[in-house]
Amino acid sequence: MEYRKIKDEDDEDRVAPVEDNIDNKSFLISVPDNSNLLGETKIDTHRTKVQWKRKSVVTLSLTILTSSQAILIVWSKRAGKYEYSVTTANFLVETLKCAISLLALARLWNKQGVTDDNRLTTTLNEVIVYPIPAVLYLIKNLLQYYIFAYVDAPGYQILKNFNIISTGVLYRIILKKRLSEIQWAAFILLTAGCTTAQLNSNSDHVLQTPFQGWVMAIVMALLSGFAGVYTEAIIKKRPSRDINVQNFWLYIFGMGFNAVAILVQDFDAVMNKGFFHGYSFVTVLMIFNHALSGIAVSMVMKYADNIVKVYSTSVAMILTAIVSVFLFGFHLSLAFFLGTIVVSVAIYLHSAGKIQR
Amino acid sequence: MEYRKIKDEDDEDRVAPVEDNIDNKSFLISVPDNSNLLGETKIDTHRTKVQWKRKSVVTLSLTILTSSQAILIVWSKRAGKYEYSVTTANFLVETLKCAISLLALARLWNKQGVTDDNRLTTTLNEVIVYPIPAVLYLIKNLLQYYIFAYVDAPGYQILKNFNIISTGVLYRIILKKRLSEIQWAAFILLTAGCTTAQLNSNSDHVLQTPFQGWVMAIVMALLSGFAGVYTEAIIKKRPSRDINVQNFWLYIFGMGFNAVAILVQDFDAVMNKGFFHGYSFVTVLMIFNHALSGIAVSMVMKYADNIVKVYSTSVAMILTAIVSVFLFGFHLSLAFFLGTIVVSVAIYLHSAGKIQR
Repeated sequence: MEYRKIKDEDDEDRVAPVEDNIDNKSFLISVPDNSNLLGETKIDTHRTKVQWKRKSVVTLSLTILTSSQAILIVWSKRAGKYEYSVTTANFLVETLKCAISLLALARLWNKQGVTDDNRLTTTLNEVIVYPIPAVLYLIKNLLQYYIFAYVDAPGYQILKNFNIISTGVLYRIILKKRLSEIQWAAFILLTAGCTTAQLNSNSDHVLQTPFQGWVMAIVMALLSGFAGVYTEAIIKKRPSRDINVQNFWLYIFGMGFNAVAILVQDFDAVMNKGFFHGYSFVTVLMIFNHALSGIAVSMVMKYADNIVKVYSTSVAMILTAIVSVFLFGFHLSLAFFLGTIVVSVAIYLHSAGKIQR
Repeated sequence: MEYRKIKDEDDEDRVAPVEDNIDNKSFLISVPDNSNLLGETKIDTHRTKVQWKRKSVVTLSLTILTSSQAILIVWSKRAGKYEYSVTTANFLVETLKCAISLLALARLWNKQGVTDDNRLTTTLNEVIVYPIPAVLYLIKNLLQYYIFAYVDAPGYQILKNFNIISTGVLYRIILKKRLSEIQWAAFILLTAGCTTAQLNSNSDHVLQTPFQGWVMAIVMALLSGFAGVYTEAIIKKRPSRDINVQNFWLYIFGMGFNAVAILVQDFDAVMNKGFFHGYSFVTVLMIFNHALSGIAVSMVMKYADNIVKVYSTSVAMILTAIVSVFLFGFHLSLAFFLGTIVVSVAIYLHSAGKIQR
């Protein structure tokens, strides 16, 4: 009975990546050709609903976590400079994510027993690709130090919107998933809208970025987009595999890389002042938030896709600005309103573009 | 033979407003139900092509004339202040438009003889609605003096983008023509894109506009939109009527209203300094440009619609800015690039939205 239940969920997962491309509405209306039993259609409808609900919950969680993440950063900056070493915080984030994944797995083993799909042990063949996203992010973070020779921080913030386009292009090329023409238009609008929302009186400086700066920004966008799309490919490769096992293996490599970063970058500081020097309540909140956001990203990759992730983080950016008005007395610019309108229309078009397929 | 030719063109006009709503592509592919003669389909295809060509020519002319109009204004401003009285220039624009319409009519009478559709004489019933657009524009221009008590000139430039939305809404309500959901989305984007393209470091001031300013801006947008849509309704009411006759009657009232404006506003100046005081070569160019633009607007109303007009003038705004870089060494802002992207996507969506009907 227990096993049967798991297999049912398993089948659901197996179907997910294929159905991802099919519009839910048309799926609800159409009766499959190979079956005219009412019962099967009912199960399909139920399955679609469960999938839709799960997709919505993980997307909403990611949006809220990402926007509160930005708010915590503003809060911690207002409270003063970063006193703690960033590498130790990153290491703790990875450790916390690992711990949460293990806790979830322990609960699952307790309830459903150990199966092929939720056992922690793995093959070299399965696990060999897991460090790749971490390596890509590492390269991107290293490049980040060099790009500031050509662009200032607000300029970099604007150039980072290349990530949106690069994610879309790599999603198409690597995962071979199609977007309709309207959805491509929506994606271009999302990029333009996010950039517009971030405009300020100094934004025009970015147009004076030297050629090397543009190249680096594009390379970084491609690395970041590739890391995201590659993570989705890894997670979706074996749909029946429990997400917590997949997360555990992703994060254990994250822990490893960050441990090396502590040794290379902050070894002296940690030795002299201690591992937790400069940690405050906000720091702890930020670590928890980053850990939960990271898990939400994985969940979105599993149950939705990179495109949903990009929309989700764009909405988060807008929510952050609106919440900051109330929390920190920020002023919203006309550019922000215009950008928000464009982003909203992009979201509408992304779903309207789906219907016509 | 001559008459037959006129009747053919006449039929073409009669068909135009109906087909306006039908996508050209689908029309070319589909064979009419009530006729399976190859000959008729051929004529339909030819007719559609002629209409499409005429629509393109008038739209392109309007775009080029509008953008060169803005460039002439910048040029004349650079050359110094307006030395001439604006009311006399406006009167001359209307007179020139009347003269051009009469010339075109004379040519037509010479070639095709006088018919019911191209004769100048009219009925009270036909002509009574012709002064209405002129009156609406007059009210709008009077309000324009008062709005500057609440908004500065660059702010007014930004608020004028309400015109785009008001034209769309009134087009839907008064002319009862439908836009698809994608086309509405495109229209919102067009408004946001044009506003974004015009953003500068002082644009945020417009957010401090007092309530009365917002109300006046919206009323002015509605007046301007209503005048445009009403002109289209007048011109399209009798599709077979020659456009030059319709223009003549539109412009003769324009002449009348502007003659009154000279008397009220600039009577002393004209009496003391003369009618043509302060006219320069640029002034003459501007008068010719305004006259031709006015005729192009009428043509777009006749052979296309207000929606096409709005897109055309938005593209003109962008062209003006790009040409100004080369002519006057203007700098383009990041906001301009982003706005241009959004406007371009809006144009694509407007035509993509049509296809799905």
